[in-house]
Amino acid sequence: MAEFDVIARYFTRPAPPSVAVGVGDDAALLSVRAGYQLAVSADMSVCGTHFFADADPEAIGWKSMAVNISDMAAMGADPRWATLSIALPEIDHDWLHGFSRGLFACADAYGVSLIGGDTTRGPLNIAITIMGEVPTGKALRRDAAQAGDDIWVSGTLGQAALWLQSRLGTMQLSAEDARRFAIAMHHPQPRVALGLALRDLAHAALDISDGLLADLGHILRASKLGAQLDWQALPKPVLTGDALAPALISSVVLAGGDDYELCFTAPLHQRARLSTLSQTLALPLTRIGVVTAAAELSVFDGDKQMPLQQKGYNHFG
Amino acid sequence: MAEFDVIARYFTRPAPPSVAVGVGDDAALLSVRAGYQLAVSADMSVCGTHFFADADPEAIGWKSMAVNISDMAAMGADPRWATLSIALPEIDHDWLHGFSRGLFACADAYGVSLIGGDTTRGPLNIAITIMGEVPTGKALRRDAAQAGDDIWVSGTLGQAALWLQSRLGTMQLSAEDARRFAIAMHHPQPRVALGLALRDLAHAALDISDGLLADLGHILRASKLGAQLDWQALPKPVLTGDALAPALISSVVLAGGDDYELCFTAPLHQRARLSTLSQTLALPLTRIGVVTAAAELSVFDGDKQMPLQQKGYNHFG
Repeated sequence: MAEFDVIARYFTRPAPPSVAVGVGDDAALLSVRAGYQLAVSADMSVCGTHFFADADPEAIGWKSMAVNISDMAAMGADPRWATLSIALPEIDHDWLHGFSRGLFACADAYGVSLIGGDTTRGPLNIAITIMGEVPTGKALRRDAAQAGDDIWVSGTLGQAALWLQSRLGTMQLSAEDARRFAIAMHHPQPRVALGLALRDLAHAALDISDGLLADLGHILRASKLGAQLDWQALPKPVLTGDALAPALISSVVLAGGDDYELCFTAPLHQRARLSTLSQTLALPLTRIGVVTAAAELSVFDGDKQMPLQQKGYNHFG
Repeated sequence: MAEFDVIARYFTRPAPPSVAVGVGDDAALLSVRAGYQLAVSADMSVCGTHFFADADPEAIGWKSMAVNISDMAAMGADPRWATLSIALPEIDHDWLHGFSRGLFACADAYGVSLIGGDTTRGPLNIAITIMGEVPTGKALRRDAAQAGDDIWVSGTLGQAALWLQSRLGTMQLSAEDARRFAIAMHHPQPRVALGLALRDLAHAALDISDGLLADLGHILRASKLGAQLDWQALPKPVLTGDALAPALISSVVLAGGDDYELCFTAPLHQRARLSTLSQTLALPLTRIGVVTAAAELSVFDGDKQMPLQQKGYNHFG
């Protein structure tokens, strides 16, 4: 089967009105609305590094797109278009069918059009570049936190990391917990509606992919500030099975990664609006700490400072 | 060495004025000029499929960027921005130094800014998405050829494919020819200036990556037309060494691939302007045939029709 047949069969859809030329020419042609900036981000997912070789291809498709859309959410951008470059070891129609179904399910759920890409032979690798629109000057940048800001996080942290630990055999989850946390790992829900609303409420934002401390650290370094986090306030996984060792919980919540929740800073006078927003979106938004002028990151359990070691996931660690 | 250190050390440059936020946030932010469409294309280069494992990293860097820029040239778009996602089996500083030098040499030569991307661990894979600007409605599309158009090609065809055959040991080149054709393979010059000029002269265009017949076939299918090519007119490699077997020459010229020359169709009344353009650009532009209403592609050597078999490179052939 030729490269072009793979693209035609699995990855071609009618182009939306914003796209003058979609898949099938040397390049796609699209129009960015006047008054908007283009937000662009790229994420690569590699078999063996980001997912197991036997992972459900539909989940791989969903997540490959979701992690890119999550970057748009983190900028307060409206996700619009994506390119997909994929290296495949062979033409496996079952795999391609599942993968493309998952990819488009996620793209459709968030209004993203696949406008082009590349298909080639090689070890399984999925590279997506996503593009979105944000009103000029309204993007949520990492370098815009202010001392005294509240630090907020959406959803629950550490669920995906717990699933991974269970999958690696380092601990056991109940069947019910394993099922719920597998969804957190494989079908993350990019917080696009939250990101759009935060344009007018938050100072700085990003999505948590490498772990809370590592990612919050990016905001703090870019903003030249520090933070104090409240361990007891952090939204932790609720288990139906046996309680977990404290070191494991703190590890997955602070440094687990794969959360794809938003972490953001906002001035104190936005607390009421953020509480209303949480209800409107039916999405927990939790205040987890404050931004400090002193450029240090610490976590307090009551009045006791917690030792911090593992700071987040490093692909070359 | 952490992922972020690799990005900071090898792939971060100051952002140009068109880029409000470059490498280092969840997404880059850029501005497309009013009256322009955004042209977007993606190409993936995989070790073992697109280049040999022992290839010069500087050449890999140049070519990975060049093949993407070539897609902008083929659309008549001005290349502006690119994302790079790269999977690396290990942190090899010599390799990264050479690769990034080649990548930026090509990007700088064509005015492209690297605005973001991703670095991860995995089998060597380089995925670039390139973005450019083209005045709205002026792009060179594949579906715009007209019956009676001249068919033109830039430069010389088959040189890169000859180098590959020699590298694979199926034939021998003189040292001088091997040197020249290695440059064609490893340091292709995307025909951006030509593409920009063709906006007002040509009907349809594309770049030749998979071989003349395969790529011209895309224009013909998209335009629902055919073509007659003149074998004797085609710009063939000039060898200093022994003459090659006719079957080998026709194979590399018609179906070799990796040429990254532009193939385009233009009305007859543009011949004089195209001749002048060729002189201005110091780039051979050769009329190689005509577009026909009958939807067939044939090649004539004098008045004798040539048999056509190998139609071009197929990554899954």
